[in-house]
Amino acid sequence: MALPLRRRLPVLPLLLLAAGGLRAAERSSSSSSSSAMEELATEKEAEESHRQDSVSLLTFILLLTLTILTIWLFKHRRVRFLHETGLAMIYGLIVGVILRYGTPSTSGRDKPISCSQEDRLFTTLLVNVSGKFFEYTLKGEISPGKIHNVEQNDMLRKVTFDPEVFFNILLPPIIFHAGYSLKKRHFFRNLGSILAYAFLGTAVSCFIIGNLMYGVVKLMKLVGQLSDKFYYTDCLLFGAIISATDPVTVLAIFNELHADVDLYALLFGESVLNDAVAIVLSSSIVAYQPTGENTHAFDAAAFFKSVGVFLGIFSGSFMMGAVTGVVTALVTKFTKLHCFPLLETALFFLMSWSTFLLAEACGFTGVVAVLFCGITQAHYTYNNLSVESRSRTKQLFEVLHFLAENFIFSYMGLALFTFQKHIFSPVFIIGAFIAIFLGRAAHIYPLSFLLNLGRRHKISWNFQHMMMFAGLRGAMAFALAIRDTATYSHQMMFSTTLLIVFFTVWIVGGGTTPMLSWLNIRVGVDPDQDPPPTNDSFQVLQGDGPDSERRNRTQQESAWLFRLWYSFDHNYLKPILTHSGPPLTTTLPSWCGLIARCLTSPQVYDNQEQLREEDSDFILNDGDLTVTYGDTTITANGSSGPHTATTSLDGRRTKSSSEEALERDLGAADHEVTSRGTRLVFPLEDNA
Amino acid sequence: MALPLRRRLPVLPLLLLAAGGLRAAERSSSSSSSSAMEELATEKEAEESHRQDSVSLLTFILLLTLTILTIWLFKHRRVRFLHETGLAMIYGLIVGVILRYGTPSTSGRDKPISCSQEDRLFTTLLVNVSGKFFEYTLKGEISPGKIHNVEQNDMLRKVTFDPEVFFNILLPPIIFHAGYSLKKRHFFRNLGSILAYAFLGTAVSCFIIGNLMYGVVKLMKLVGQLSDKFYYTDCLLFGAIISATDPVTVLAIFNELHADVDLYALLFGESVLNDAVAIVLSSSIVAYQPTGENTHAFDAAAFFKSVGVFLGIFSGSFMMGAVTGVVTALVTKFTKLHCFPLLETALFFLMSWSTFLLAEACGFTGVVAVLFCGITQAHYTYNNLSVESRSRTKQLFEVLHFLAENFIFSYMGLALFTFQKHIFSPVFIIGAFIAIFLGRAAHIYPLSFLLNLGRRHKISWNFQHMMMFAGLRGAMAFALAIRDTATYSHQMMFSTTLLIVFFTVWIVGGGTTPMLSWLNIRVGVDPDQDPPPTNDSFQVLQGDGPDSERRNRTQQESAWLFRLWYSFDHNYLKPILTHSGPPLTTTLPSWCGLIARCLTSPQVYDNQEQLREEDSDFILNDGDLTVTYGDTTITANGSSGPHTATTSLDGRRTKSSSEEALERDLGAADHEVTSRGTRLVFPLEDNA
Repeated sequence: MALPLRRRLPVLPLLLLAAGGLRAAERSSSSSSSSAMEELATEKEAEESHRQDSVSLLTFILLLTLTILTIWLFKHRRVRFLHETGLAMIYGLIVGVILRYGTPSTSGRDKPISCSQEDRLFTTLLVNVSGKFFEYTLKGEISPGKIHNVEQNDMLRKVTFDPEVFFNILLPPIIFHAGYSLKKRHFFRNLGSILAYAFLGTAVSCFIIGNLMYGVVKLMKLVGQLSDKFYYTDCLLFGAIISATDPVTVLAIFNELHADVDLYALLFGESVLNDAVAIVLSSSIVAYQPTGENTHAFDAAAFFKSVGVFLGIFSGSFMMGAVTGVVTALVTKFTKLHCFPLLETALFFLMSWSTFLLAEACGFTGVVAVLFCGITQAHYTYNNLSVESRSRTKQLFEVLHFLAENFIFSYMGLALFTFQKHIFSPVFIIGAFIAIFLGRAAHIYPLSFLLNLGRRHKISWNFQHMMMFAGLRGAMAFALAIRDTATYSHQMMFSTTLLIVFFTVWIVGGGTTPMLSWLNIRVGVDPDQDPPPTNDSFQVLQGDGPDSERRNRTQQESAWLFRLWYSFDHNYLKPILTHSGPPLTTTLPSWCGLIARCLTSPQVYDNQEQLREEDSDFILNDGDLTVTYGDTTITANGSSGPHTATTSLDGRRTKSSSEEALERDLGAADHEVTSRGTRLVFPLEDNA
Repeated sequence: MALPLRRRLPVLPLLLLAAGGLRAAERSSSSSSSSAMEELATEKEAEESHRQDSVSLLTFILLLTLTILTIWLFKHRRVRFLHETGLAMIYGLIVGVILRYGTPSTSGRDKPISCSQEDRLFTTLLVNVSGKFFEYTLKGEISPGKIHNVEQNDMLRKVTFDPEVFFNILLPPIIFHAGYSLKKRHFFRNLGSILAYAFLGTAVSCFIIGNLMYGVVKLMKLVGQLSDKFYYTDCLLFGAIISATDPVTVLAIFNELHADVDLYALLFGESVLNDAVAIVLSSSIVAYQPTGENTHAFDAAAFFKSVGVFLGIFSGSFMMGAVTGVVTALVTKFTKLHCFPLLETALFFLMSWSTFLLAEACGFTGVVAVLFCGITQAHYTYNNLSVESRSRTKQLFEVLHFLAENFIFSYMGLALFTFQKHIFSPVFIIGAFIAIFLGRAAHIYPLSFLLNLGRRHKISWNFQHMMMFAGLRGAMAFALAIRDTATYSHQMMFSTTLLIVFFTVWIVGGGTTPMLSWLNIRVGVDPDQDPPPTNDSFQVLQGDGPDSERRNRTQQESAWLFRLWYSFDHNYLKPILTHSGPPLTTTLPSWCGLIARCLTSPQVYDNQEQLREEDSDFILNDGDLTVTYGDTTITANGSSGPHTATTSLDGRRTKSSSEEALERDLGAADHEVTSRGTRLVFPLEDNA
């Protein structure tokens, strides 16, 4: 039984505390002037170890540098079959092979000795060596078989980082950047579908993969391929680990080719949110501890506890991220910090980092909190920043994200050869590949069918195939798998995850461009331009038949919920947290006049016109998408009729209610529905 | 006897390896399913410890956030008596007091136990606890008196970082930024003086302070104030530690008030280089290990070995930094990486970081290498970067520098109360204050006198007083002092250094503005504009008298050396490493035609005109400075005659030799000395 993952330690403080252990040893042994020879030997050892440390880090820097140079060459020559992450893995593999087979095994420099002790385990030991006391700290348990080869190869040991590094240092910038660079407009207009794929889809995938793998494990037991325990909860954990998709290579190609923006939003949104879901899911599975003897069978109480843990952690982390985002927005709004971009950027960075720590300190998941903090920062704080800080923060996190991501992928390549506890089981690996294929198919197609019932703009078959195809696994699956490799089952899961990541990144990444053209998905789309509504698309939609009534109701309900949020956000949150939106004096009731005047920034009155433009990014703009693609060719899509929406809007520029803003935002599909007693224009309501 | 500092371990690899020790313990104890109760207890403990870690880091983030907000307020209201670093220290002090006296002493959570062992010291222990093996690593020696209060207060322990963090994580970005943001023009035209202050000055200061402190220590022994050993080498080490000046607050005010640029260059250049000198000096003093019985007396062999070590480490680190800078310049020149600013920035960052690691791996000083890497990057690589990367790299390192610097200063405030081994000795502290005052006086005034013999533009008395006054101590002195606090003498040195930093940053920082006006140092200077030569300045100079002959020779010699370097740099290095400078085809002999064509970038032929402008930054432009200030008032300096140089240059725009460039660069004091058979124009040669 693995430990609850959510109770992990943040690595940084530990880093800072635990660092230089050897150095401290060196220092202390030097301060005793008794035996000069021993001192010299210790210093020599420390020096040697210090050089190896530097060399091991240099190895990674060299890897990254090589990757950068090669990827420049690839981009320069427009080679698209290999993404930088795939390349980083290849270089990692090569260096891994060299380290594994090319370096001598320098064993026994510090042969550990045994020392019997009472029954209780302590985290600190004081050892009396000829009158002097030395402090030792617990590092971990060693399985009895490995006592004699703990320090088998110094170099391999040096390049093997602690798993927590991935979780606490490398993932946060990646995830924050994902949230911060979210293309909000396309994300929000597909929000419902994205949430469905991320939550329902990941849960379905996790359970299907878990159960299939349990079958595989049973089979392996039957044929005698399994040499140690492998519980049902382990299978479910594997399902959670491997359900975190990371279509980084596919999205990079989408970006480069300007492929369809809504498909991009669906894939990107799903992968960002299902990372969060997978983390919390795996924590909940680990927290699933049935009482009684049979600790790995099904127990309803424990199951509901796990569900509770899932909901608690997820909503807690969400809140934490949102709250720090809101606080940052308020601070940047009410101080004139934007006169000093350096201070502003530093504050932004610190507040975003504190989200992570705050969540960890409260027992939530820092990575998830950081994701929602990023989204909140992009939605509110970004508007308050000075122009310089906007580009600074973007660029800062872009660089951090780039370095962290490529580091993880090159480490993965390296880990295939330098990780010393691999267990490759062909049956398990083949089973896992089949399971992830089935698991993805079992959520993409049924969910798309259900979503299409409610979506006006259907997720077409070729989109579904592309989503099915783009189910790559990447950094998050790796980080989740490497977190705990103490037991036999977890080691097998880790090795299998590594292979799945390799396979999907190389094969799927390389096959994206052919797949795009094979599936007739249009490329060369301007991401800021919606496909304008064409006349035949209306005909297709309006000829839908008898079940349009029910569907319409579904649409209206979701629209109602969304409308509520939107008008709350637009009327209250945006004016309070940013310099944009309508003045609070017009949206709040008159008895809050004083507060409203205090909270509304004077800029609002001045630059309402200008802000209106920016604002239009944040809202559903569900143009006629689905019907346009699929059957027609790319050129046909590009050359369609003119935008009918814009002209009708120009006449109403003076009013500043949320309705009008919504209207304008949603104007691309401009059906005004005055007959229902509301002037709100909803593109979802197509058969008025 | 302290250990050789240069053999320290780089903290990062260790960080990554050592991190999560507790986490590993937690994991391993969980994997044993025997005693569920014990497991639960360990998990609870780990969770608690994890929260405390997060809270301690949050404390620092809160401190930095508070500092940022307050400093914004100060800048907003133009308060100048307190710099952000001084403020960070005050907040640190306050939090330190709260932590010290406000938190309960949570002792004995993990009472360490004793366990006797054979005579040899191991870095790894294997402990057998009821059949299972656990690995422990050595943390350090504990003095016998402190065995029972090792974990006296968890919170205080948590906020106490490992000293190596300061050296290996926080200093490199600060130092790199200093090198990278160097205002090259003003730096290079005062290079001789800066080098003299930094090398000679720091050495003089170190030895004077060391000897004075040895006197103080003798005195303390006489009056019975000293309770433990305090060797002569310790005194010298203190001299080296405290000789690293850091006039960050003064320079911030200079920047804000646009005070005199040459004084700025002198102060900034001195402080940047003397940091490097102080590090290497302290390493050499530690490496000074006389043979025989009396290990702390003077030994000529050991002394020369130390001098050799100093020269070796310094030149090695210098080379290392310069080489990686040059490699980066070549890479950025010969690949078209500038089409992808993200890749370029990432490469730049990685190469700069690898300098640090490379130097550490080779046994040199990473921080010093990083400084020269920064200077080389600014001199060559910066010209090859895309416009976006230029601002990106600047901003990235600016943010890192800002955060690291304020972290160090707020930590200093905290350390006054949370560091548990302070030894405050009034005699030593008063002695130290007198010693640093005398040490600084003993190098500023005599060196300035000597330099003035060789300088055409004298360092006037008020400049000398200002330099004397601006000898603040900061981050580097703190980092050097905290490196080794194992012995009594080092603890006393650390406490004293802390107080000196506090005093100088607050008092001197706050007194800068009054001092500037009291010393009549002009403010409001445009840093890119030289004070134009006035007629009376020439009169003052030419009326110098009989010793002008000798002085002139000195000037010519230094000019000759500089001229050699400049023409080499301009004719060969710049064209090879950057896209600027004259084409190599014109500067190299004709038989290297092919190589010259390969190495010269095609841009050179196109934009020679434009680059000429940029180029003029990098060269001595020793206008008439000294004579202008001091006696005359600020307004009188601002309104002097027109630039006579520019017109005479326009006629010679077609030639592209180094001579012409130098001529143009130095044109501000335009005496053409055709009678000496060279067309080079040297402002240093004033009495032709």
